Parts: sequence; structure tokens; C-alpha cells
Amino acid sequence: MFSPKIQKLIELFSKFPTVGPRTAARFVFYLLKTPKEKVEELIEAITELKKKIEICSFCFNPFESDSEDLELCPVCSDPRRDKSIVCIVEKEIDLEAIEKIKKYKGLYFILGGTIFGFKNKKEKEKIEERVNKLIDRIKKSDSKIKEVILALNPTTEGENTCLWIQRKLKSLPIKITQLGRGLPVGGELEYADEDTLSSAFQSRK
Amino acid sequence: MFSPKIQKLIELFSKFPTVGPRTAARFVFYLLKTPKEKVEELIEAITELKKKIEICSFCFNPFESDSEDLELCPVCSDPRRDKSIVCIVEKEIDLEAIEKIKKYKGLYFILGGTIFGFKNKKEKEKIEERVNKLIDRIKKSDSKIKEVILALNPTTEGENTCLWIQRKLKSLPIKITQLGRGLPVGGELEYADEDTLSSAFQSRK
Amino acid sequence: MFSPKIQKLIELFSKFPTVGPRTAARFVFYLLKTPKEKVEELIEAITELKKKIEICSFCFNPFESDSEDLELCPVCSDPRRDKSIVCIVEKEIDLEAIEKIKKYKGLYFILGGTIFGFKNKKEKEKIEERVNKLIDRIKKSDSKIKEVILALNPTTEGENTCLWIQRKLKSLPIKITQLGRGLPVGGELEYADEDTLSSAFQSRK
Amino acid sequence: MFSPKIQKLIELFSKFPTVGPRTAARFVFYLLKTPKEKVEELIEAITELKKKIEICSFCFNPFESDSEDLELCPVCSDPRRDKSIVCIVEKEIDLEAIEKIKKYKGLYFILGGTIFGFKNKKEKEKIEERVNKLIDRIKKSDSKIKEVILALNPTTEGENTCLWIQRKLKSLPIKITQLGRGLPVGGELEYADEDTLSSAFQSRK
Repeated sequence: MFSPKIQKLIELFSKFPTVGPRTAARFVFYLLKTPKEKVEELIEAITELKKKIEICSFCFNPFESDSEDLELCPVCSDPRRDKSIVCIVEKEIDLEAIEKIKKYKGLYFILGGTIFGFKNKKEKEKIEERVNKLIDRIKKSDSKIKEVILALNPTTEGENTCLWIQRKLKSLPIKITQLGRGLPVGGELEYADEDTLSSAFQSRK
Repeated sequence: MFSPKIQKLIELFSKFPTVGPRTAARFVFYLLKTPKEKVEELIEAITELKKKIEICSFCFNPFESDSEDLELCPVCSDPRRDKSIVCIVEKEIDLEAIEKIKKYKGLYFILGGTIFGFKNKKEKEKIEERVNKLIDRIKKSDSKIKEVILALNPTTEGENTCLWIQRKLKSLPIKITQLGRGLPVGGELEYADEDTLSSAFQSRK
Repeated sequence: MFSPKIQKLIELFSKFPTVGPRTAARFVFYLLKTPKEKVEELIEAITELKKKIEICSFCFNPFESDSEDLELCPVCSDPRRDKSIVCIVEKEIDLEAIEKIKKYKGLYFILGGTIFGFKNKKEKEKIEERVNKLIDRIKKSDSKIKEVILALNPTTEGENTCLWIQRKLKSLPIKITQLGRGLPVGGELEYADEDTLSSAFQSRK
Repeated sequence: MFSPKIQKLIELFSKFPTVGPRTAARFVFYLLKTPKEKVEELIEAITELKKKIEICSFCFNPFESDSEDLELCPVCSDPRRDKSIVCIVEKEIDLEAIEKIKKYKGLYFILGGTIFGFKNKKEKEKIEERVNKLIDRIKKSDSKIKEVILALNPTTEGENTCLWIQRKLKSLPIKITQLGRGLPVGGELEYADEDTLSSAFQSRK
């Protein structure tokens, strides 16, 4: 129904996370109304993103780099961070969520997703490759890593991925912990599932 | 608009928890359509409830009693329950939720609500009276109570009521604990508030 | 888990429309806390409802009657109402919704539900019986009925029931109309389905 | 918290309709993971959009044009469309919604928004300018326009904008109509507001 060029862009925006065709169409009409120089600013920002943003070789967190020699993100290269502890998260935004609470002082490791659920094979291989890299580092003679925190979402996919990581790390001389379960702020006992409630009793203090 | 007798019953049903006038009207039309003997069954069941159900003199849990001499509910009179620990909950249904997980073996104490929020003065006094009774029992020379678990909802009202109870119990020779906070099953790190996330890190294991 | 008498009443309340076992439990705890005289007021009101409320022999609308001789509800017995037009609605509350707008001056006919969807056979027969009664009245030599308005919900069940009624009334010398479709107040064109939008164009003025 | 280049792009995406900072961050992480050639395809499509898409000089609908001489969109330049009738809509996507039902054969006029609500002054002036252009065209001696359909959303803003347009077009020798109101497909009488229900009765057929 829309003209081919509009339709093409609707399709590309539809691939963005959380965006369906209707919202994608709204994006296109928004860009059509936006002055040329503002659209150029957007194109410039996207171009810069792909040019200047590197992926940290340790934790896979994206970071801005002016020199191509830089391999580690600001967290991983910060001498004040505790190198003995690594927190595995599903995605970049989870790392940001944890940084915000300003309580955790160790390193991170971004998995890039879960290996269960509706994922394609290629993505799964990428995640497995990342975990293998982590294992190699822990095995290295100069490794300082003593604890790995599994901070994946307590969803079915997250839980299954945790079990899978635990099996892979089992024989390594490190402690493996998992984030505590319990009642979230604002939650209600009456509606809590049994696992959550059991954990809340066990971790009472 | 409705006839006075229908209107009267709509008003009475509107006082039921979670029921507004529209749902109350549906209840009335449902009863109008229901055969007479079924309605009599309902009336009988309500009458029996008020006649045969006693309130436990220790934990305030309603229970069925054939003799008026019985003062304690099945939980409180069960010799296998651990009398050294008392779990304070807001309401009857929270007790049921905890019993369902089959992990807790101590006694309960139903507060009857929270003392903050939009409550009237009379309800507040009732709750205070109950807490005073608990304090008296803990103070008794034959009291076995060693721990009080505050299992109120982690809502603002629940939190404030916890603080208030903690102040009241402060000088007593008992341990006061609170249910653990953390990520609930199915939750997502990305959307967790900072308190919940901090607790989840602290209670990792 | 609950005592038998509490469990029994939870089951009876669970049969109320829109009420599940959790809400039913809340109702029971509410009644347990309610003073005896208030509960007796409720029982009295339910008893009165079943004793004093009659069902109109023409439109099946429940109404309050002091004498058992009265057969017609206030709407049907009101000489100012237009007897040439009958509005068929699914249920009592729809009649109230239409009376509230104070625009319709004809009579009503309460179907008691739809004949499609998850209904049991007995309910279906009851609805069919009611429609047959309406047909008999229209056929009577002294019938003033000239128009039947189908004011059923524009849901799949409502639509199918309309088609079924239309087939049953087809050969009668009356006009059969249906409520207009269009955009509801607060609606948005963008989200309107095609039928609604087509109707909105056709009924523009 | 994010690096400046990531932050910059998050801000630009946050200006997109329906997008908040959290979703904008997801977009950025999505682009970071997307292969370079796919991102270039997106940039290319945005660039093409701004270069090749013209705005119709009559109805303000965006359309694809290979020559800069073309002033009218495919709808406005289609000889089979009825030039005597103009349908005013709020935005481009409403035009698409109406085209989809394949019942309307006249022309369109995209207002570009409503003049009430939280709009800035500049946008309001743009809308007023567009309406003034329409008035000029209707006044022209060769104008074929006989009916203007107000197809704005039946929201408060849409209604107020309709009243405003009606006042502005009042003295012109044309018929002004408005889309019909009524129950939408899937709606329920019980929950319909009084205006919607009144309209549904008036437009019954």
C-alpha cells in the first residue's frame, strides 16, 4: 500500500527490537516530517557508532575508543575493580542496571543472550564460543578469577542457561554463585510463586 | 434505576473486597437467575460460617470448631509445629500462601492489615491491640518464642508497618528477621528496582 | 487447606460471575471479619430478593412486586412507552445501560444470553423458548409491534445470535433493525477494524 | 553512564514516536550487533526516503517521485477518484487505514495533527496554514469539492479540532459530514459510553 521506498524502510525498522510494522510506519512518517539536517544528524550518529564503538575483548561490553589499540572497556581496564569476581549477564543493558546500584565492584561478562528459547543455531554458537573463551581465561595460570556470579534473568530460558553454564564450569577451581531470589519491592506474598516464597524464607535476615 | 431491593443488595455486595457497583449488579442478576434451593444453600453456608468458625486466640486465624471450648486453631495446637518461631503476616490468605510451600514449620500471627495507608482509626487500634497481645506473650516467663519473622508485603505500607513493629519489639530478647528480597521467578534484571537488585547481590549463593 | 466450611463457601462464591477461587477466599475472610448484624443484613437482602422480585412476563426484566398479581415490569406497564418497538438485549444490565441514555422510548426483551459460545444445552433451550414467545406475541392479532431492534453485543456470539434471530423472525410483518456500528468515543481510526470503519463511513452525517 | 556516542544515539532515537530511553538503548545495542552492511542498508534507505519522497501539494500525503515536476500523489492524480469529496484525516496512517477498507473513492487531506492538546505553537500554525489552503481551493471557481468528511479521531482533541474546522468552513457552499459513531466490532453495550450508545440507536438500520 505504501510506496516501495517507504515500505522498504518500514521493513528495516520492523527488525528493531520491540518494533512491529505499525510502529515502524510511524518512525518513517516521523522521519519524513523531520527537517533534513536532523535526519543527517541521525545518519551521522549511526555511522559514528559503527566506526568508533569497539567491543571489549574481555567482557564484550561496547565502548567508545579513539585508538584501535584499545582492547578493554573502561570497567575492565579500571585498576580499582575487583578482578577476582566475574558477573555473567545476558545483555548490555543488564550490566548498566547493575552498575546503577553502585554496589558491585567486580568485572562483567556479557553472554549475548540465552541458549534456550527461540534462538537460531548461529546465535547459540556465538554464546557457546564466548563461554569457552571465559573458561580458557579462568584456566590460565595468571587468572585471578575466584568467583563467577550467574546474574541471568530468573526466567525459564535464563534458568536453563544457568544450568548449562554451571555444567561447563563445574570442574574449574572457582566458586559459582547465583543472584538471590525473593520478594521484589512492591510485590505481594499472596501472589508470589512457591519458589520465590521459599527463597524469601531461606534468605531472611 | 434498579428497584430498591435490587439496589440494596448491589450496595451490600459493593462492600465486598475488589467488587464495584457493576460487578455487584452482576452478582444480583446471577442470584435472580439461580434456582431457589441453590440460593438457600448459599445463605446456609454463610450462616454456618458465622456460627461455627472461631478465631484462634493466639494467631487470629479463623478455624472450624465444634466445641466452644476450643481456643487454638489446628496450626497452633499441632504439637509438631515449632513454638520458638512466629511468622507475622498481614492477612489470612498470606498464611495460606506460606503453608502451601510446606517449608515453614513455626507458628503464625495474623496482623489483620497494615497500620499505614488509608485505614480508619478503629482498624489501626485493632492491629495495635493484637501486637500488644503478642508482646505480652513473648514477655511471659514460659514463652518459647525466640524468633519473629516479619513476613509483611514489601509494599510501602508493609515496610512502614515492619519498622513500627520492629520498634515495638526492640527491647525483647528475641531475634527479629525479615523475608529476603530478590528477583522473583520470571522477573528481569533490566526492570528490577535498585533495592531488589542490591538484595539479590547480597543474598547470592 | 481451608477448613471444610470455609472451603464450601469459597466454592459457592466461585460460581459468581467474574469470581475465581482467590477472590472467593477474600469474600469469605471479609464475611468472617464483618460484624454479625451486617452479615444478617446481607442474608436478609438475599432472601428478600428471591421472595419479592418477579420476572416480567413480557420482557423478562426482574422487578419488585408487592402483589403476586402483577405480571408486567414498570417499563412494560408504563402507558407512555411506545409499544410498537421492541429492543432485544442480551442481559438485564444492557437494558439498564440503554435506559440510562434516556433516548429510547420503546419496550425491551431480555434474551438471557447468546445461543453461541460455551453455553450448555439447557440455557440454549431457555433462550429459544423466549424467542418463540416473542414470535407468538408478534403474530397475535392485537400486536402493536412494528419494529424489533437487535441490540446484542457486536461480538462473534452476539452477531451469530442476531443472524439466528433474523432467520426466525424473517417471515413476520415487522421491520428488523440493528444498532449502528462506528467509531466509539475515544477510539482511534488507526486501530479501528475494517468493518467498524466501513460502517462509520456509511453512517456519516 | 553509556559512552557519549552511544548516549547521543539513544537521545536521537528517544525522539522517535512511542520510544523512551530504555527502548532507544535497545535500538543502539541492536545496531551494534548488526553487521556493517545491514546498517549501511538502513542508512541508505533513510537517505533515499528524504531524497525521493515528495509531499503531495494537495493532500500532503508523502509519495515516491522520480521527477521533481510531479506535484500530486497517486491518489490525487488518479482520474478514477471522485474529486467532489475530500476526507480530512489527522495523519498519514489514518489515510492508509481508510484506503485499506476499499470503500472510499474520494480524495484526502492530511491535517498533520490536532490543534488542541500539548502541541507547540509552530505545529498549530502549520495545521492552520494547511486548512487555509483547503479553504482557498474550495473557494476557487473551478473547485469540484461538494462534501468534506471530518474523519478525525473521536478523542477530545479530535472533537475540538472538528469544531474548529467546522467554524472555519461554515460559510462555504459545501456539505460537512462527520464519521458515524456507534459500537465497534467486539464492543459491549454494557461498557459503551452514553454518546456512543445514543449514536448506535440513531444510526440503526
